[in-house]
Amino acid sequence: MSDSEQHGTSRRDLLKLIGTVAGSAAMYQAMTSLGVAAESPYSGPIKLEGDPKGASVLILGAGLAGLVAALELRKAGYKVQLLEYADRIGGRCWTLRGGDRYTELGGFEQQCAFDKGLYLNPGPWRIPYHHHAMLDYCKRFGVALEPFVQVNYNAYLHSHRAFAGKPQRLRHVLSDFNGHVAELLGKAVSQNKLDEMVTQEDKEILLAALRRWGALNRDYTYAANGFTSDRRGYERDPGGGLAGAPTVSQPVGLGDLLKSGLWRHLATGNIYEFHTTLFQPVGGMDMIAKALARELQGLVQLDAKVTSIKQDAQRVTVTYQNSKSGGDVRTASADWCICTIPLSILSQIDINVGNEMASAISAVPYDASCKIGLQFKRRFWEQDDAIYGGISYTDLPISLIGYPNTGYSDAGKAVLLGAYTFGPYAYELTALPPAERVKRAVAWGAEIHPQYEAEFENGIAVGWHRVPGVQGCYGLWSEETRKAHYKNLCQIDGRIALAGEHASYLPAWQEGAVLSALDTISRLHQRVVASR
Amino acid sequence: MSDSEQHGTSRRDLLKLIGTVAGSAAMYQAMTSLGVAAESPYSGPIKLEGDPKGASVLILGAGLAGLVAALELRKAGYKVQLLEYADRIGGRCWTLRGGDRYTELGGFEQQCAFDKGLYLNPGPWRIPYHHHAMLDYCKRFGVALEPFVQVNYNAYLHSHRAFAGKPQRLRHVLSDFNGHVAELLGKAVSQNKLDEMVTQEDKEILLAALRRWGALNRDYTYAANGFTSDRRGYERDPGGGLAGAPTVSQPVGLGDLLKSGLWRHLATGNIYEFHTTLFQPVGGMDMIAKALARELQGLVQLDAKVTSIKQDAQRVTVTYQNSKSGGDVRTASADWCICTIPLSILSQIDINVGNEMASAISAVPYDASCKIGLQFKRRFWEQDDAIYGGISYTDLPISLIGYPNTGYSDAGKAVLLGAYTFGPYAYELTALPPAERVKRAVAWGAEIHPQYEAEFENGIAVGWHRVPGVQGCYGLWSEETRKAHYKNLCQIDGRIALAGEHASYLPAWQEGAVLSALDTISRLHQRVVASR
Repeated sequence: MSDSEQHGTSRRDLLKLIGTVAGSAAMYQAMTSLGVAAESPYSGPIKLEGDPKGASVLILGAGLAGLVAALELRKAGYKVQLLEYADRIGGRCWTLRGGDRYTELGGFEQQCAFDKGLYLNPGPWRIPYHHHAMLDYCKRFGVALEPFVQVNYNAYLHSHRAFAGKPQRLRHVLSDFNGHVAELLGKAVSQNKLDEMVTQEDKEILLAALRRWGALNRDYTYAANGFTSDRRGYERDPGGGLAGAPTVSQPVGLGDLLKSGLWRHLATGNIYEFHTTLFQPVGGMDMIAKALARELQGLVQLDAKVTSIKQDAQRVTVTYQNSKSGGDVRTASADWCICTIPLSILSQIDINVGNEMASAISAVPYDASCKIGLQFKRRFWEQDDAIYGGISYTDLPISLIGYPNTGYSDAGKAVLLGAYTFGPYAYELTALPPAERVKRAVAWGAEIHPQYEAEFENGIAVGWHRVPGVQGCYGLWSEETRKAHYKNLCQIDGRIALAGEHASYLPAWQEGAVLSALDTISRLHQRVVASR
Repeated sequence: MSDSEQHGTSRRDLLKLIGTVAGSAAMYQAMTSLGVAAESPYSGPIKLEGDPKGASVLILGAGLAGLVAALELRKAGYKVQLLEYADRIGGRCWTLRGGDRYTELGGFEQQCAFDKGLYLNPGPWRIPYHHHAMLDYCKRFGVALEPFVQVNYNAYLHSHRAFAGKPQRLRHVLSDFNGHVAELLGKAVSQNKLDEMVTQEDKEILLAALRRWGALNRDYTYAANGFTSDRRGYERDPGGGLAGAPTVSQPVGLGDLLKSGLWRHLATGNIYEFHTTLFQPVGGMDMIAKALARELQGLVQLDAKVTSIKQDAQRVTVTYQNSKSGGDVRTASADWCICTIPLSILSQIDINVGNEMASAISAVPYDASCKIGLQFKRRFWEQDDAIYGGISYTDLPISLIGYPNTGYSDAGKAVLLGAYTFGPYAYELTALPPAERVKRAVAWGAEIHPQYEAEFENGIAVGWHRVPGVQGCYGLWSEETRKAHYKNLCQIDGRIALAGEHASYLPAWQEGAVLSALDTISRLHQRVVASR
């Protein structure tokens, strides 16, 4: 907090100074750039000034961190080369489409049987509006974006323990929760029970605010009437002509609402990373990786399994083998190395860095997660249930159902996200053969959408702790590990520097990977320019 | 309420019966269709069974009500003809683009100077997901839809009386309002002040729910920390590498928040008609009118100002003149007439209907509203302020600023909605010459976006009470007028029937116009078939 206040104060002082000197136009110019820059750690395309004089960088991993590092370093005059474990570029920025084959650790192979144009993003699937670096790279490299619907008021909240297992519309739960909260507080305040907490001056305004926000009657009750149906929806919607009279709907009582536990999901859309407006790339998340990779043709060696990373005073030398066929050990070397390999893998590789970085590399466990894409014959969630995009939540092991935020009202087939689950459920689910995972997801989903059974066609399941070359979803920092190890992980060790979502304060987000890469290459470049 | 309960009971009885007879598959089938049908007054494409045997219908007005009536009646075998006052089809379903000319009542002419691809919808601009008829017509007639962002957490709430006129981010106001409400109620409940209102069983759950929903500490305080910054956003966002540590933000105090009045806007996204997912037609609202009109080529007479509507026992005869040049009075006649002319105009036309309908026609005043579209050199709201689509609200006479929900991140020019105001402000604004209206909108908007002044290029202003052939925004029913006149307005009077948003329970919404048309033609068709 004191940080924040200091920050605010010094910014105000600066603005005052600029205002005095240059008048209001300059003041405004300053406000704009400072306003955005102060909030975001990304302040536009990186400028790496100074000549690296032919220095070379070997980049390990062609996920977003590696790709961004390669693009920006090459632009700054470096010789760059990338090694990537997988047979494709992008890392966790990945999209599965019909015809794609995927073999997980343990040997299970799946062939994606989706129809043309349909896809699953097994990894990240959304980009918040304040992930400025991601949006800027999309813009600079021509990746088209479309809105990602996080909160859909007509989607379901479901608990198999509540309301006899019948899914509830979010709009009902949300309106009724707000209404009951407003009613309780409104009654308490109007009955003078909170007089030591609310000033007399604020009291009347608060009561007016609660009535309006909670859709309360004048006596602070939340009841079945037109006012509350204008929030939660009607039993029968208003229509036209003689047959159009609406019928109001009946709110759920406070006790039932609380006991259902469905309120757990109400804050979702209020979480900073899920605020509107969110985006997704048109056609799949890997459109981003593909757009970046297009610029790097010939510089990426695919199927390269790194087996050791060694440095001395002059160079970094990496050995690698073909990740599928094994065979000869090959070497690559450069003046510097940026390693974006996930810590789950890097902690298993022979790397000669100091104890501090080595300890940090071993300190971060990886979360497990599992995503399952399901293809259906038709968009029954739109046609029957009027759910266009967004997410339904459940306490079943699938955790959620994510509806496609594209192709609305299409008459044909479609793919939805039939499970997105973390931790124990992800382990349990992935312990099963893929076909069985899909079968379970269909059975659980059918508790929310009975249409599943008749409409299901095929599915594909990705458990991240079984993805070769990744073995986990993202680096799971705790407050303690971050305090002990984060700086040591990010400090350049000799000629080796790390980058990736694990080297950021935005774990699991692509923005974290990109900002980490930009921070790392800035520091590396300073060192290179200073040393030449 | 008793209506609602009866409805619910009879539906349950029906389901029970179906379940007994046919087992659970049939039960589910019934649930789906009844589920949607029960909530919406639209249950799919209308079926007009029975042969009208060559009956003819004259339809007055080629807005959505008239177009839908024409299409469906023609399909059912009627001879249809439409008369439209304006020189274009669509009525209030209207889009202004570069090159369009618009002359309002009083003679002011404007030429729209928007760049290619940019537009303003002077009338309706959004379609809720539960406006099933609108969505179905879009689907049937190939109108592409894209999401309309109603709530943007990063858009502004502004009061010229609060926070020294500095616009506030919605995410700040919303998070802090929820937080303070949760804190007050949490403290009151935990201090046993609400024990007669909340059962012991519910109490602990309520406290847990408030903590989670409001982002409270364990002691029920809402304070500056990572938990609350994960809702309202950070002073400095989390980033990557060594430079990425976030700085938390400072919530606004309860008193300042209440006195600002900005809480007035917090329920907007919770209103049924503004629930996600909303849509807009790609390219402008009139894509709908154009798609319907494409099917009706040759049947619509434009520039036709209706001067009288007369009926006898056999036919309806309408006189009309060219609405621009005047000239000869022409007549059109048919067996039946569906009149969709707004009551603001119809009440000025000689029509021989009974006293009841005549009184109804005169009973409904029309609301005034004004929309102003502004073209800017660049999307500064995206580039500088990170606002992608959605709406900022203000207590200035412009009421709101609506950002384009399309073309996100485009580098070129763009049009935003610079004012959308009702009632007195709309009259005041429209009393000025159009250029002056635009100038004012720019000046007011600049209090929220100072970039307006440097970036503004041109604008166009539509005040609905000055739109020829409409003279108002929509029919403003009160509870009293609806009780006294609504049925009389909707009852078929001899051979004349009315339709339009004014003959619906959804005033101002296109869905109301369409459902009104469908209800009217159903009843008319029954009468026609019965009489033949």
